[in-house]
Amino acid sequence: MAALLTSRRVEFRDTDAAGIVHFSAFFFWMESVEHELLRRAGLHVIERGADGVEVSWPRVSAACDYVAAIRFGDEVDVAVAVEAIGRSSVTYGFTFSHAGAVVARGRVVAVHCRMHRGRKPEPVAVPADVAERLRAFAAEG
Amino acid sequence: MAALLTSRRVEFRDTDAAGIVHFSAFFFWMESVEHELLRRAGLHVIERGADGVEVSWPRVSAACDYVAAIRFGDEVDVAVAVEAIGRSSVTYGFTFSHAGAVVARGRVVAVHCRMHRGRKPEPVAVPADVAERLRAFAAEG
Amino acid sequence: MAALLTSRRVEFRDTDAAGIVHFSAFFFWMESVEHELLRRAGLHVIERGADGVEVSWPRVSAACDYVAAIRFGDEVDVAVAVEAIGRSSVTYGFTFSHAGAVVARGRVVAVHCRMHRGRKPEPVAVPADVAERLRAFAAEG
Amino acid sequence: MAALLTSRRVEFRDTDAAGIVHFSAFFFWMESVEHELLRRAGLHVIERGADGVEVSWPRVSAACDYVAAIRFGDEVDVAVAVEAIGRSSVTYGFTFSHAGAVVARGRVVAVHCRMHRGRKPEPVAVPADVAERLRAFAAEG
Repeated sequence: MAALLTSRRVEFRDTDAAGIVHFSAFFFWMESVEHELLRRAGLHVIERGADGVEVSWPRVSAACDYVAAIRFGDEVDVAVAVEAIGRSSVTYGFTFSHAGAVVARGRVVAVHCRMHRGRKPEPVAVPADVAERLRAFAAEG
Repeated sequence: MAALLTSRRVEFRDTDAAGIVHFSAFFFWMESVEHELLRRAGLHVIERGADGVEVSWPRVSAACDYVAAIRFGDEVDVAVAVEAIGRSSVTYGFTFSHAGAVVARGRVVAVHCRMHRGRKPEPVAVPADVAERLRAFAAEG
Repeated sequence: MAALLTSRRVEFRDTDAAGIVHFSAFFFWMESVEHELLRRAGLHVIERGADGVEVSWPRVSAACDYVAAIRFGDEVDVAVAVEAIGRSSVTYGFTFSHAGAVVARGRVVAVHCRMHRGRKPEPVAVPADVAERLRAFAAEG
Repeated sequence: MAALLTSRRVEFRDTDAAGIVHFSAFFFWMESVEHELLRRAGLHVIERGADGVEVSWPRVSAACDYVAAIRFGDEVDVAVAVEAIGRSSVTYGFTFSHAGAVVARGRVVAVHCRMHRGRKPEPVAVPADVAERLRAFAAEG
């Protein structure tokens, strides 16, 4: 299957006084698109374990390189692929395009964690069936 | 002089349903603190050139690594230093701490640009006097 | 025609540490949906006039009443209707629902303005053809 | 004592492509300043009750009227006062000024609630000692 292709519209809230999209908007799109991928893969973004503790995917790393500016009302095409699956982590790669030209590239590393209230998130292994579902969106070698 | 030390308070808007600070908040703090550094250096974030075109510092790259979660109401200490000055770019390094422990590290590369309305930002060389003022916040070797 | 019906998904960025949607998210949805209505009406959110000055619709008032909490991943149905058209202003009414139950109601008053750089926005009359297009989305009496 | 006077700086994130502060920023400032008032009053924004359920102050209503535009870098002075205390609700009034001129006025109604996970917030009476502390910030008659 490989990369998931989806799109987002630039909202006014995403712009800044320089007249272009604020750099932070790309991080919000990465999160939104990562969650769309999880849903398409038949997975939950947040799940409640048998013991009542929520299991989710906090980030340990997020990065974006900006190639060109986009503006209010533009349609942004986003390609997201699973680049790597570690013991408890998943690395996603994102390519943002507008009108066929790349405008930004991003990468996020999320870790499968038990989210204890008031305590540090506890990394737990990615179950085999979850990894299997994520591999359907693996970047092509 | 070296790194600028400042702090920010976690607002409720910065949190998410996992009960912790949303990963995007660190990018907003990086921008806020970069701008505070520019002001302390006696520089303007946005300046209007002699020809009426605004000159500013859009980002070409932004990244953050997350070490520990922080929560609503926490005080975040931020150390920011100028790590490198190129022909038209400045690289800033950020260390975020809470209660003496590092919670995140970030890096931003901003480029000195003329911001033409409706056209691509045009990189222009960092003037010598601007570089001089920024070097006062250089990371120590 | 009357109200425009559309929907938005609750993103993780919209939530807060109380585990529910942050009250600010409804204001962003109101803006997004107002702009969708303008596009459906064949209008531009921002237009450049003959003299190069941009014409847009800044708000003079925004309000929201919250009836019930919604959560990450929920689908929010939004009904927006034009409640009144004044000389230079348009009043929009919004009803937010989830699973058939109203969760919030909002109202925004936007003013048709010439957006001079660095000066106060200047209200200008809503042209007859624009009012005509907006009336297609009028709330039913 | 009456109104609490505080100030906020317009960050770049608060601006939009119209070159002015986005209307949503005022709602974030209202929340931030409301929380500052609670802290000054010696109260907690979120408290864990004896039974482990968190008690907090979700909003049932928020509104803002915009008088004048403000811009990146501006200092915004905010006066907040407690306008009314009901059985379980508190009404706050906000006046935003820049350089001595009013730029916006806002109002928020927050309700003292037990925040059950996954259930509707449950309003509970404002304890007498909490009301006493809030009355120190009452608007003058």
